[in-house]
Amino acid sequence: MASFTVTPWEVKGKVDYEKLIKEFGTIPLSDELIDKLSKHAGGKHMFLRRKLFFSHRDFDNILKWYESGKEFALYTGRGPSGETHLGHLVPWIFTRYLQETFNAELYFQLTDDEKYMYSPKLSLEETKNYAYENMLDIIALGFDPKKTFIFLDTEYSKTLYNIAIQVAKKTTFSTVKAVFGFTNETNTGMIFFPAMQTAPCFLPTVLKGKEIPTLIPAAIDQDPYWRGIAREVARKLNYPKPAQIHCMFLPGLAEGGKMSASQPDSAIFTTDSPETVTRKVSRAFTGGAPSVEEQKKNGGNPDICPIHKYYYYLFEEDDKAVEELYYNCKKGKLMCKDCKAELAVRINKFLAKHQKEREKAKKKIKDFLLRD
Amino acid sequence: MASFTVTPWEVKGKVDYEKLIKEFGTIPLSDELIDKLSKHAGGKHMFLRRKLFFSHRDFDNILKWYESGKEFALYTGRGPSGETHLGHLVPWIFTRYLQETFNAELYFQLTDDEKYMYSPKLSLEETKNYAYENMLDIIALGFDPKKTFIFLDTEYSKTLYNIAIQVAKKTTFSTVKAVFGFTNETNTGMIFFPAMQTAPCFLPTVLKGKEIPTLIPAAIDQDPYWRGIAREVARKLNYPKPAQIHCMFLPGLAEGGKMSASQPDSAIFTTDSPETVTRKVSRAFTGGAPSVEEQKKNGGNPDICPIHKYYYYLFEEDDKAVEELYYNCKKGKLMCKDCKAELAVRINKFLAKHQKEREKAKKKIKDFLLRD
Repeated sequence: MASFTVTPWEVKGKVDYEKLIKEFGTIPLSDELIDKLSKHAGGKHMFLRRKLFFSHRDFDNILKWYESGKEFALYTGRGPSGETHLGHLVPWIFTRYLQETFNAELYFQLTDDEKYMYSPKLSLEETKNYAYENMLDIIALGFDPKKTFIFLDTEYSKTLYNIAIQVAKKTTFSTVKAVFGFTNETNTGMIFFPAMQTAPCFLPTVLKGKEIPTLIPAAIDQDPYWRGIAREVARKLNYPKPAQIHCMFLPGLAEGGKMSASQPDSAIFTTDSPETVTRKVSRAFTGGAPSVEEQKKNGGNPDICPIHKYYYYLFEEDDKAVEELYYNCKKGKLMCKDCKAELAVRINKFLAKHQKEREKAKKKIKDFLLRD
Repeated sequence: MASFTVTPWEVKGKVDYEKLIKEFGTIPLSDELIDKLSKHAGGKHMFLRRKLFFSHRDFDNILKWYESGKEFALYTGRGPSGETHLGHLVPWIFTRYLQETFNAELYFQLTDDEKYMYSPKLSLEETKNYAYENMLDIIALGFDPKKTFIFLDTEYSKTLYNIAIQVAKKTTFSTVKAVFGFTNETNTGMIFFPAMQTAPCFLPTVLKGKEIPTLIPAAIDQDPYWRGIAREVARKLNYPKPAQIHCMFLPGLAEGGKMSASQPDSAIFTTDSPETVTRKVSRAFTGGAPSVEEQKKNGGNPDICPIHKYYYYLFEEDDKAVEELYYNCKKGKLMCKDCKAELAVRINKFLAKHQKEREKAKKKIKDFLLRD
């Protein structure tokens, strides 16, 4: 862990995902499992073809459960500490694909309590406001309003607290210390919080009064909650163990690291104007050579280039076309300036549609919101 | 602290209240303050004459606040881990006296979450049931339904959690470790719980949107919450500091120690039948001599006798009469058998009325219950 750090509150350095699979003890997403999922979906999602989703726990068992005619629910979340950027959308887009494929209910947690308690700077009003802003981006992605339940921890705390105390009763300080690296100076709200994030794993079972396991699509940094707390506690409380399917982080526009709201120029926010997007993309780090001449001669390096990764993960669906982009860069046929200009156009096209849906979402909140 | 222990979860040994005042750093309740309170009340309550309430924090300031024409609220509570016994009623009876005197609102917390998380044996259903049973005893004491708000933590957790996270953000594990003796093996629910018990200190201010300090009448074992958490956090969050007025424990019927539900034969429960009361009292430890002859000759020792203490604290209002009991015992004029028989009569008289009111209380719950 010398060169990179992945915790629920910090992702730093160049992440070695193979190492992470070993360290966290998750299972690589096999081609067989991907094919099985794709068959249900009637098509292989780009995020699966490009291995953006790469790891899981018990996803095979969830498929078996589903294939035996039984219901499961989806659960994912967002820590509302700022505006939504493209990186946040990755697991949500995939979650919608899972919802469509399995006609599954989705429980979407906005942890405004966590972000308030974690940050010395943020007030509860601020994290609540971010939660409502983030919610617009979630709704804009087209989730089924009949099957999607979005909640803020502070507004659904009666239901959540009643499950969380069951979890917390079975979770010692030793455990959260080992799992999250908490210290004696950690505040007691953050110490309790893993129980609040675990509660929705069991929420469908509690609400429906019958066993409904959850599948959690989320970035790999959230795994400690499920590995260290939820799965252990499920066994002790006789709740179904939650399954997970993990994605990588979308890189930021700067060199290395994930797209992060704490470095605004490294991130494309969903509310960015076309001019802002064009400016941010044009200033982004690339795998290009120091001069156009050199690049024409020796080619660029798409392997370290966030611009190329954006095409690869989000903005070039066609497998052949993305391969072409890759080799044209390597061969010095594609210059960074043109590559960036085209990406900005595609991002802006995506955002124009998203922003329209986001505006409409303001009137749809009541169809999705779950409150006590 | 070698000979006795007083924490919110354990009271053991013969409590030295003077030592406790020094250790906890509370202020002895002065005659001057007692007179001031009694003047407002139009009479000096037996619990004050007998010094059952003996210590405070900022009670003088609450009186000043009240005398300047401003409103304060009362806050007390109960951990529903079993049935109500006479010992529990002491602070509640005094709380009603304070409510009548100051026409103050009362917030009454039933910590069913705490008792569930603390006890490996108790289920949440059990602590909730105890909470509703205990509630009947509270209502039976005659609190003003317009000014009294009783709530279970699990049923009022939306409101409480939103205040508790403010408290918890300002409370580290180091602090609760030092204040409550928590260890690494303490569960994360208990670690968070002090924030839940602190929340009602600030509840009137939050609900009314203006500064309303709370006065907490409670047994001295609860002091760590206010000393260690609430008062510190109030300063940091700019909430009014809660004031306290502390009572001693009613002794149990066994030798030494407080009346405790965990030793059923040492406690008179509010639902005990006349036969049970008579039996328990007749078998109680006393300060009597080994034989009637010896007692007639050398007298008894009322200073160590729980039977005498029951007269003193609860069942002989008349100061002269209680003094007579004391000296008649010392002089060998009063035999344990007669003393016990008379006490049983008085307890049963009290309980007959209480049980009638308790029965009526079943229909009044809705007038008192606060839920999200």
